[in-house]
Amino acid sequence: MNQSHEAILVVAASTINADMYYASRFLAPDPFIFLQTTSRKWIAVSDLELDRARAQAAVDEILPLSRYSERLRQQGSLEPGQAELIAEILKERSIGTLLVPASFGLELADSLRSRGYRVNFKKDPFWDERLRKSAEEIAHMTQALRATEEVLELALETIRQSTIRNGLLYQGSQPLTAEGLRRLIHHGLLDRDCVAEQTIVACSDQGCDPHEEGKGPLLPHQSIIIDVFPRSLGSRYHADITRTVVKGTPSVELKRLFDGVLAAQEEAFSRIKAGVTGQEVHEAVSSRLERLGFQTGEVNGRQQGFFHGTGHGLGLDIHELPRLGKGGGVLQSGNVVTVEPGLYYPGIGGVRIEDVVVVREEGCENLTRAPKVLQL
Amino acid sequence: MNQSHEAILVVAASTINADMYYASRFLAPDPFIFLQTTSRKWIAVSDLELDRARAQAAVDEILPLSRYSERLRQQGSLEPGQAELIAEILKERSIGTLLVPASFGLELADSLRSRGYRVNFKKDPFWDERLRKSAEEIAHMTQALRATEEVLELALETIRQSTIRNGLLYQGSQPLTAEGLRRLIHHGLLDRDCVAEQTIVACSDQGCDPHEEGKGPLLPHQSIIIDVFPRSLGSRYHADITRTVVKGTPSVELKRLFDGVLAAQEEAFSRIKAGVTGQEVHEAVSSRLERLGFQTGEVNGRQQGFFHGTGHGLGLDIHELPRLGKGGGVLQSGNVVTVEPGLYYPGIGGVRIEDVVVVREEGCENLTRAPKVLQL
Repeated sequence: MNQSHEAILVVAASTINADMYYASRFLAPDPFIFLQTTSRKWIAVSDLELDRARAQAAVDEILPLSRYSERLRQQGSLEPGQAELIAEILKERSIGTLLVPASFGLELADSLRSRGYRVNFKKDPFWDERLRKSAEEIAHMTQALRATEEVLELALETIRQSTIRNGLLYQGSQPLTAEGLRRLIHHGLLDRDCVAEQTIVACSDQGCDPHEEGKGPLLPHQSIIIDVFPRSLGSRYHADITRTVVKGTPSVELKRLFDGVLAAQEEAFSRIKAGVTGQEVHEAVSSRLERLGFQTGEVNGRQQGFFHGTGHGLGLDIHELPRLGKGGGVLQSGNVVTVEPGLYYPGIGGVRIEDVVVVREEGCENLTRAPKVLQL
Repeated sequence: MNQSHEAILVVAASTINADMYYASRFLAPDPFIFLQTTSRKWIAVSDLELDRARAQAAVDEILPLSRYSERLRQQGSLEPGQAELIAEILKERSIGTLLVPASFGLELADSLRSRGYRVNFKKDPFWDERLRKSAEEIAHMTQALRATEEVLELALETIRQSTIRNGLLYQGSQPLTAEGLRRLIHHGLLDRDCVAEQTIVACSDQGCDPHEEGKGPLLPHQSIIIDVFPRSLGSRYHADITRTVVKGTPSVELKRLFDGVLAAQEEAFSRIKAGVTGQEVHEAVSSRLERLGFQTGEVNGRQQGFFHGTGHGLGLDIHELPRLGKGGGVLQSGNVVTVEPGLYYPGIGGVRIEDVVVVREEGCENLTRAPKVLQL
């Protein structure tokens, strides 16, 4: 048997695997099979998905899995498993060597290897071209950003219109809460065909844990970090914006954090361009904050200062390559990254400001328009 | 070096990997490390997640990844990768053999194997106990079902209140559309702290493709399949309910499909109990539909009749074990499964009815309360 040919193989559910969605442009909640040679692309799906796959998938041919399971049953296999079905598809095309994603499942890899196939993984990014966004992809993300900005403005307007009483913010007779503001944001996003979860509305020291969602009443004169990172339901591309605001009067220390984070973000903008590494950008941001007198490190068993990366790639995944942080590689024209320095000091509060930019040959282009104003 | 000990290792983001969430009860959007020996459970996370992990994770100890990367840097490693960090954690505990999920990533598995570790996968289910739901898990799912039923009733009431004009359904002066009803459902779910995507509102022949979301104006006298499968934001458990309705007068043929699907569902209810296989339940449902005269097979290159499984396990994942379908194994007390027979005939329409039941020793308990009425 001649199994001299090579192919790319991905087996995943495209609802949670962006490499699969990028390759197939077919959205399915259960794992299916994507196969690509130098000249042709296939997906293999169950009968249940055939109609939709034929209408939607950006491949040359849709293979009904039932065709292969019937054939295997006729050959005496009682209940053909995934590896057996894939082997049958590969045999038909004389494919013996497979390139798979780094995240390819071990059970299937071991099973294919034990059948004599060479299975090699490719380190992330699996599709290099996912890193350099096309004009269409940038348009999708810009659309998601505009929707996010509208909804962010609804949230800020709600805080602006709130009244300060008894050390709390009130919307009419009810205290304004993180949960209430999060719900308002999620409804607003749905109205714009976007979906978000775990939106951060973190007030005061809650905001000092950068991934804390936030809960309970929002307080006057304290930092409120709002970090919204929805996915567009239509395009599946993400937006990601953070603003930090205060209703009432921020402390002098908090204003200093805000100005420091703004300066750190400007530092990043001035550094980002094709050819620079993500690590260099991050180091420049860290140094700028240090020079401004903001210290980073553990105090009483808790990190404070600037202790996360400067940003991350954004696209079909909310966190993708390249990284602006330790180990972040060379930036390329067309990369889309967040720029989100932050400062966190329990007792003063947290400040993070986040925009989304496109890397260009000579600099970066900020896709975000939301204003940056601390005091509402 | 003594590396004689064994451990379970999972490396995944718990937002998309239910096995990881089940093990750690810690929700994080980026991959982290879970390790379990016979006596102890750990997770290893970045500094960014330390505070939240300490507050939330159901493990014995939280390991800061930075501790290991610093140690490795001191030993001369410039930018320690994931496998190197894990090896360092394993070495400290004399662990040489690892049991990992079937979906464990190939890059990491190969990298650990090349360092001398034995890496064996366990076929799904990775955590056997995920299949037998506790009273608490059933309460979470019942809560999600109640929320879903309330929202389903909002949608049905909207259809009920619509008026028939010019061959369309109108809500006031606007045609009632699949998109509009889907949006109403999603907002209603958000109000109840649930989140759904790809909710199906598929009218007439659109409903003959069981995974078609549906689009455009809803039509009178035609089947409208509404399939809602949200996740509770609090508990992360799912609900899954389908109802099929008609505004106006259903055809005689459509009524026959509806009665057939109801009978098929009753057939399943009467069969489901501990000890029976999912395949047996599915075969009983298929036979019942055949005996009622409903034929299944390909017509003009398209599947029609009853061409999907009878149901699937439901829990932290929307599709999990056990299956009620071909190859479905022995049911156990405490399994929670959907029961969702359907009939699809282009020209007549599609009908699917779906409830969620708990498998018990002597039968099944239906957790779903939503009424089953074809004509609104």
